[in-house]
Amino acid sequence: MNGVEEEDPIVYEIAVVVPRRNLKLENEGYDCVEVLVNEFRNVGFVVERVFGLHDEFIKLAAPLETLGRVAAGLNMKKTTHIGVDLQFEWEEIEAFVRQSDGSLFSWCERFQCYRHLIHETVNKKNSDITLKFDGKEIQWEPGESLLQRLELEGIVKQVFPLHDETKRKKLLRSWALNWWDVTTQPIDEINVYFGTKIAVYFAFLGMYTRWMIFPAAFGLILQLVDFGSLKLLVFPAFFISIVLWAVLFFQFWKRKNSALSARWHLNFSSGTSHGYKLSGSEWNCLQPPMELVKDSGIDKTKEKEDFQRYEWFGYLRRCRNDAIVILSIICLQLPFELAYAHLYEVIKSDIMKFGLTAVYLLVIQYFTKIGGKLSIRLIKHENNESTEYQADSLVYKVFGLYFMQSYIGVFYHALLHRNLMTLRQVLIQRMILYEVFENLLENSLPYLKYSYKKFRAVRNKKKREKGSTGKIQFATRVEKEYMKPTYSASICEELEDGLFDDFLELALQFGMIMMFACAFPLAFAFSALSNIAEMRTDALKLLVILRRPVPRAAATIGAWLNIFQFLILMSICTNSALLVWLYDQEGKWKIEPGLAAILVMEHVLLLIKFGFSRFVPEEPAWVRAKRMKNATQAQAMCSKQLLRSISGGDKAFGGYTPRKTSYGTNKTD
Amino acid sequence: MNGVEEEDPIVYEIAVVVPRRNLKLENEGYDCVEVLVNEFRNVGFVVERVFGLHDEFIKLAAPLETLGRVAAGLNMKKTTHIGVDLQFEWEEIEAFVRQSDGSLFSWCERFQCYRHLIHETVNKKNSDITLKFDGKEIQWEPGESLLQRLELEGIVKQVFPLHDETKRKKLLRSWALNWWDVTTQPIDEINVYFGTKIAVYFAFLGMYTRWMIFPAAFGLILQLVDFGSLKLLVFPAFFISIVLWAVLFFQFWKRKNSALSARWHLNFSSGTSHGYKLSGSEWNCLQPPMELVKDSGIDKTKEKEDFQRYEWFGYLRRCRNDAIVILSIICLQLPFELAYAHLYEVIKSDIMKFGLTAVYLLVIQYFTKIGGKLSIRLIKHENNESTEYQADSLVYKVFGLYFMQSYIGVFYHALLHRNLMTLRQVLIQRMILYEVFENLLENSLPYLKYSYKKFRAVRNKKKREKGSTGKIQFATRVEKEYMKPTYSASICEELEDGLFDDFLELALQFGMIMMFACAFPLAFAFSALSNIAEMRTDALKLLVILRRPVPRAAATIGAWLNIFQFLILMSICTNSALLVWLYDQEGKWKIEPGLAAILVMEHVLLLIKFGFSRFVPEEPAWVRAKRMKNATQAQAMCSKQLLRSISGGDKAFGGYTPRKTSYGTNKTD
Repeated sequence: MNGVEEEDPIVYEIAVVVPRRNLKLENEGYDCVEVLVNEFRNVGFVVERVFGLHDEFIKLAAPLETLGRVAAGLNMKKTTHIGVDLQFEWEEIEAFVRQSDGSLFSWCERFQCYRHLIHETVNKKNSDITLKFDGKEIQWEPGESLLQRLELEGIVKQVFPLHDETKRKKLLRSWALNWWDVTTQPIDEINVYFGTKIAVYFAFLGMYTRWMIFPAAFGLILQLVDFGSLKLLVFPAFFISIVLWAVLFFQFWKRKNSALSARWHLNFSSGTSHGYKLSGSEWNCLQPPMELVKDSGIDKTKEKEDFQRYEWFGYLRRCRNDAIVILSIICLQLPFELAYAHLYEVIKSDIMKFGLTAVYLLVIQYFTKIGGKLSIRLIKHENNESTEYQADSLVYKVFGLYFMQSYIGVFYHALLHRNLMTLRQVLIQRMILYEVFENLLENSLPYLKYSYKKFRAVRNKKKREKGSTGKIQFATRVEKEYMKPTYSASICEELEDGLFDDFLELALQFGMIMMFACAFPLAFAFSALSNIAEMRTDALKLLVILRRPVPRAAATIGAWLNIFQFLILMSICTNSALLVWLYDQEGKWKIEPGLAAILVMEHVLLLIKFGFSRFVPEEPAWVRAKRMKNATQAQAMCSKQLLRSISGGDKAFGGYTPRKTSYGTNKTD
Repeated sequence: MNGVEEEDPIVYEIAVVVPRRNLKLENEGYDCVEVLVNEFRNVGFVVERVFGLHDEFIKLAAPLETLGRVAAGLNMKKTTHIGVDLQFEWEEIEAFVRQSDGSLFSWCERFQCYRHLIHETVNKKNSDITLKFDGKEIQWEPGESLLQRLELEGIVKQVFPLHDETKRKKLLRSWALNWWDVTTQPIDEINVYFGTKIAVYFAFLGMYTRWMIFPAAFGLILQLVDFGSLKLLVFPAFFISIVLWAVLFFQFWKRKNSALSARWHLNFSSGTSHGYKLSGSEWNCLQPPMELVKDSGIDKTKEKEDFQRYEWFGYLRRCRNDAIVILSIICLQLPFELAYAHLYEVIKSDIMKFGLTAVYLLVIQYFTKIGGKLSIRLIKHENNESTEYQADSLVYKVFGLYFMQSYIGVFYHALLHRNLMTLRQVLIQRMILYEVFENLLENSLPYLKYSYKKFRAVRNKKKREKGSTGKIQFATRVEKEYMKPTYSASICEELEDGLFDDFLELALQFGMIMMFACAFPLAFAFSALSNIAEMRTDALKLLVILRRPVPRAAATIGAWLNIFQFLILMSICTNSALLVWLYDQEGKWKIEPGLAAILVMEHVLLLIKFGFSRFVPEEPAWVRAKRMKNATQAQAMCSKQLLRSISGGDKAFGGYTPRKTSYGTNKTD
């Protein structure tokens, strides 16, 4: 393997946290932590043990060879130089595309290997092994993973990914603190360090902010210049150009996204949402979607029927879940929000208003928590194909909640007063409050948490070691990282991470500025500024304040794309209504109930017309499954041979024995 | 090759028409027809010569082995048992999927081979060969195809596909004359006999007619039952259910279409329109779209830029062409149609009306001819990837013309009178006239043409051979077929065949019944009946009246799907307008100009929002081209090896030498 360069200084990427023990036991061999460390060494890790104030940290690094072995064992698919994904094999290492920083495995793949490896520490003997921990005895059963056992016993407190200090500092300089490049970011390096999903988020944020310059400038002009008699024409022109801008932006974002995927040698299809088409899924599909594929052969028509039943049951269940979510939002949340908005209008005293808002804020915290839990419970009954699909499903459901929460008040004010000036005031209030409040909260809260944790740790230490002299400092970086908060979503921690909050912020902002564009054109300038700030603060948050997040492989922005598209649609409708008010100040254009009903019906139908094609895919599940099965077979057959020719290792294929599979049975169909 | 069964009795599938010569020349060896026949025999055809009244027919049949040799020479891709398309090779014949009738090549593939073979009759010597024809001398240059030479000289009059008498009679019994199965058709057999595109048309027609039963029944109920006070609720309910019906129908049609493709072992992507997603195009893509792919390697960024320039120039050119078409329709056709509609309203005398209509019908004949020619000229300047794309582009352009022609009059009447009863009358008139007239014309005209041709041929023969006794009969089937008209489009013969007219009829009917559904619910019942008749008459037309059409491989209904979707959108708008009229009989709900303008703007924006994603694809052309290039490389590399393992012919791959390609250059990117 002459082409494989040596790994640079060992980088520890995972830490396992166990409590620090005071006493030195004589029979160290059976101390469970010692056994664990030995097991880690056996598995192929490079291990370093660090003692913190209260805990011991086992830092793990995997040499390239260990990773390669696991990747081959996991049958990991990797992109080769000819563009197709093939099973990784250590011998054919030259055939595979490398990351932009020259490493063979991406952070996401490495993390997958680590996760597999640390659970590979199984008891290979035939009998239980008795381990000790501070006098407590632990039975390690045969075939059981030691880490899992220790996690269950509460001895292994946490396993978390570590920052790579050199890369982190480099990124900090070139990205988070590089204020001069306003919207350009080192996307490739972000991808290498944080994984694809986060890199895609920042690419989106950067492009969104760049594109925002046009409507921001237009909005500013509208605000500053007095158009005189042309005023009545300017607002419709703004409306039209804003909608066109948004449509163009998202179309070009999709193109940019697929270009990014190509640059990172990813397959656009893996982990996409429903919105994107599954292009090129022939060879590159990750796995057949369901177990149904496996019982192949015998009865073709029965198999097809099974598939169809499965598919349609899935749709039905999904439909039911969506109905539950929508109904509960309309029946429970809507009255509550309206009540708050109404009370806020009715109450005169400022103190009362303040108290009301406080109560409201408290209640909606609970509301969203309950909503999130309910959604997760519902999602578990859906048959989504992967966790990324599940996460998308969660995003759709929870966004409904936030949508109501954020906009219903504004709608209420708009409808009640029918006055553009009041609406504008409400919007300014909300936006500034929201942006400032959110940005502050988002960044200061984790830091405060971190500081408090550190402070408490030091105090505890002091208490315990009374008489120790002077200041106690954190000697180890790994303990500091352990104190840092994780990058987690506010709504739930199961399916989403902090990206949920970041995207939610973007989407709510987008909805606010788009839906009331005609009422408050300056909003675009506001949000352009806030986005520029957001980019840097998010970068700082990820690099400095938080632990390194767990990487996710999804190559698109997933469900959020559809949510943005939905907001564009909504904005077309609301802006039309705003324009009617704007020009109908005498209230003469009465919309009779009949006409209004017909208009509503028409819009609902248009929505159904365009929404339906999203709901039911064009290709039946059984057709897709069949295609995938075929592709997998083909792949399995010539995988090895292809690899050899690509890497150009040897020219004669004498050693190759073809896998004999049962294609004969298929010939008759 | 033990598995290859013997071909049944020889089936002649292509006929070449040359004039019949009176005199028997002594040096037959140099008579060009004799040489041609010899060449055909050399190439591998089984040849039969038939002498008709005026012409001589050279009937050609190709044995399986000849076809296989050509298919391998053409590098034809065929689906294998494992689902991927691979280059055909005669030795690995067992690996390839067979048609539903057991033959190896589909009619479409056979036709391609025939077309290649009959042009393979080249002069292999180094000098010109002088051929004779009725005393005239013809120079056959080296390397020139004899057939082409003779076609240029006017000696080969025509080359056309022949009906397969046994299969034709079988289909006639099981399909065209099988009146009891109202909507079920032997789609698989149609596919085998006529090729995919025609089979897809009939599958669509059958499904459309079956689904039509629901709205037809609903419409009948609406017509027959008096709902009394509920009347005002019934029409909106009808409107909503019709739109839902249409949306569901087209979604399920797409699913059915992809299921059909799977059944026929076709790749959904080959020859699709823009509307369908290019699923599974990784391995199965036909060819890289442009020459740009070829100059690979050296300069990656320059290549990408070239691609982008090419892509955007293509869009611009297309945009310009569409603008030309739309403008000329609005500026030229619209005034003309309105003038006709207005004159028709103004003129009182019935005779004058009749005359006017006659003139009008004559003029629009020219109009559509000119429109078709213009469209074709425009399309030639677009860079469409295949002829099927070109045909789709033509369909879009020409449909605009027909749309105006068919509906503008109805719109005019509707707007002028604002009276549902008058509108209904106009609709009944148009529909019945249209259906009856069209169906009659479509089927009787070709038959009349055929009869006249036959009659003239017999008369000519009689004239020439004065004194010959009694009746002259057509002894040969092939001469009868030669007399039959071809299955050609009325608009132009270059890119489309008769399917254009058939789809056009369906689309115009669909538009008529959908757009005015609220005004005339009974229309659905009418068109359901007319479709049932249409199915049989089209079958008869193809089997009895016309020559066997040239097969087309496209596996979807192409551009028509988008046209149908557009008509659904239109129908949502028009029906809304109709409902407003229906309930606003006192004319009280005034829509002020401002409100109307805003409504119009909103709808236009909604259209843009949904239309744009169709216009610019989500994946940049260079990404797609790169993926395709990679796939092609992969395919070329393991094609042979895959084939052997599939067919299970041999187990050792000693004889295989891998193609050394320059993957080393790609490694650095």
